[in-house]
Amino acid sequence: MKIRCLKSDLVKGVSIVSKAVPTKTTMPILECILIDATTDIIKLTANDMELGIETVIRGQIDEKGMIALDARIFSDIVRKLPDNEIVIESGVNFQTLITCEKAKFNISGKSGEDFSYLPYIERENPVSISQFTLKEVIRQTIFSIADNDSNKLMTGELFDMNGDILKVVSLDGHRISIRKIELKESYEPKKIVVPGKTLIEVSKILSGEADSEVRLYFTANHIVFEFDDTVVVSRLIEGEYFRIEQMLSNDYETKVRINKRELLNCIDRATLLVKEGDKKPIIINIQDEMMELKIKSEKGTMDEEIMITKEGKDLLIGFNPKFLIDALRVIDDEEADLYFMNAKAPCFIKDEGESYVYLILPVNFSGAV
Amino acid sequence: MKIRCLKSDLVKGVSIVSKAVPTKTTMPILECILIDATTDIIKLTANDMELGIETVIRGQIDEKGMIALDARIFSDIVRKLPDNEIVIESGVNFQTLITCEKAKFNISGKSGEDFSYLPYIERENPVSISQFTLKEVIRQTIFSIADNDSNKLMTGELFDMNGDILKVVSLDGHRISIRKIELKESYEPKKIVVPGKTLIEVSKILSGEADSEVRLYFTANHIVFEFDDTVVVSRLIEGEYFRIEQMLSNDYETKVRINKRELLNCIDRATLLVKEGDKKPIIINIQDEMMELKIKSEKGTMDEEIMITKEGKDLLIGFNPKFLIDALRVIDDEEADLYFMNAKAPCFIKDEGESYVYLILPVNFSGAV
Repeated sequence: MKIRCLKSDLVKGVSIVSKAVPTKTTMPILECILIDATTDIIKLTANDMELGIETVIRGQIDEKGMIALDARIFSDIVRKLPDNEIVIESGVNFQTLITCEKAKFNISGKSGEDFSYLPYIERENPVSISQFTLKEVIRQTIFSIADNDSNKLMTGELFDMNGDILKVVSLDGHRISIRKIELKESYEPKKIVVPGKTLIEVSKILSGEADSEVRLYFTANHIVFEFDDTVVVSRLIEGEYFRIEQMLSNDYETKVRINKRELLNCIDRATLLVKEGDKKPIIINIQDEMMELKIKSEKGTMDEEIMITKEGKDLLIGFNPKFLIDALRVIDDEEADLYFMNAKAPCFIKDEGESYVYLILPVNFSGAV
Repeated sequence: MKIRCLKSDLVKGVSIVSKAVPTKTTMPILECILIDATTDIIKLTANDMELGIETVIRGQIDEKGMIALDARIFSDIVRKLPDNEIVIESGVNFQTLITCEKAKFNISGKSGEDFSYLPYIERENPVSISQFTLKEVIRQTIFSIADNDSNKLMTGELFDMNGDILKVVSLDGHRISIRKIELKESYEPKKIVVPGKTLIEVSKILSGEADSEVRLYFTANHIVFEFDDTVVVSRLIEGEYFRIEQMLSNDYETKVRINKRELLNCIDRATLLVKEGDKKPIIINIQDEMMELKIKSEKGTMDEEIMITKEGKDLLIGFNPKFLIDALRVIDDEEADLYFMNAKAPCFIKDEGESYVYLILPVNFSGAV
């Protein structure tokens, strides 16, 4: 195989597919990026068996063929080469020569034949979303997936399509995040659970442009993201997702409208008194026109007052400050509405059209005041 | 004690003195910053017994007094408060209230009486250097101090004053860095060894402005840096520094003039094939008009040619690539001159006036070609 392409194109392609290279694996071939120039295009592929990414890069094929190269070494070399044309030539025993200007690297490759290709997926009836929207939806929900594997379904996000509405849901047992978007067309009802890792990596690759589309394809076991020159294929998480409808409610006894930035900064300040995992709650005392926030730890105490607009009853309620911070951080509105029932019922942060809903369970704070 | 000052002034002061707060200590009082408002000024002090820093900040004293506050908590709080006036008030049992707008923090302090003051140093006949020059001199020499304590003197830098010349020297057994600067006045000959850690911290605080001065004072055991509103006092390293004159030489058999950036980029690329501590040498083959660089490891091989201007003999010589990179990185000249005697003698990188001299020992590379 002999190909030539610009450093910038190669760096971009390698950086995209590298997202699917496993950090730990018992199969050394998976630590490689496959350069496939057996046809008329140059295709880079990486695949950790759960998640596979391939991308096509511009370039010229002088001699058809393919080679698998260690992803880390190859990407280090490509990044450090001068900003010019790079020639990659593989020879006997998969020895590969990478040349750019007067710099020559010689590294050992592996047979492309040994590489695990991405599963073949029939691509029909895609769901189309803008890159911007998909990236935003992931950012605004991904923080509340569970960070351990004890319940596999909690490590993924529900994609729930119904008519022209896509609802994306994540939950970890303490909170639920829901984002609802309108699609341009109407689709058959479908529910799938996409691994959180896949969404995190896809979101890193998405350009985030509003006028550039991602096409999503679903099969029984896989989801495919197709955008720009890139295809991402991921396994789905099997099983039926949690029924969240019964946990949602529109009733409330107290409604608070608050400046989002002010509330976020205040909770952020408060948390410097607590260590991660400390489980010290922040106590919120909702009164007319004013909300008092208090936190107490062995390092000291903090309290602060914020002006609010209140409807309904006064309330004293405690939260894990991290959960409030996570939700407030991804809300783009200047003002946020918080709905409460009582000190033991979940708090809802949502906008009027419910394009986002964040449910957060309160914590017990007896003795913490 | 009750003082009020602007957040920006307090953040700046805390960040300066924090450089002298030890990360590990058995004396909890040393983990504190002392706020001393017993006179007409507000002074912050930190002191790890080797290095002490005090700085004066602007502000108003409502009630004289002093308090020692945990450096980490205090600096976290100050940084996260709104950008406005901060009031610090200490009361009974050293409980301290930090207020800014509607945010109130209450933390425990310690008695300022227990704090270790900086040693009193008679400040006479300072040596004056611009902040810019001192910062540059440290940057251009600090990388070649030894990173372990096996020889205490190697962890410091020699400050060698003689007439109107200040020579700063560091060495680690494999290389020597020398920077020579001209002072505005002439001073008595004096040699001292300043701890590397002190220089690293001082260099972080220096603004680096060319028209702002640092005054250096020396005693038998201490050096004092006085600049802006800050005083840094450090112990010196005891003992007689290495005699480096006998290792320096102006003879050479080969002289190479090379584009510094090109050489640096080439060696930087080469090192991605070697792990830190791998001890794989880079082999340099100096010929007429051209220098070839080669490196070989289990990851692969790299070679590259660079155009040079050569005087004298051809030469094949090996180096630890890191040592070349460290020296080349801090040289500001576009072209660098390298002087060689033979494959077993040190290489010198220096400018014509010898304002900088970098001596690097070659390594054996039998079998590495």
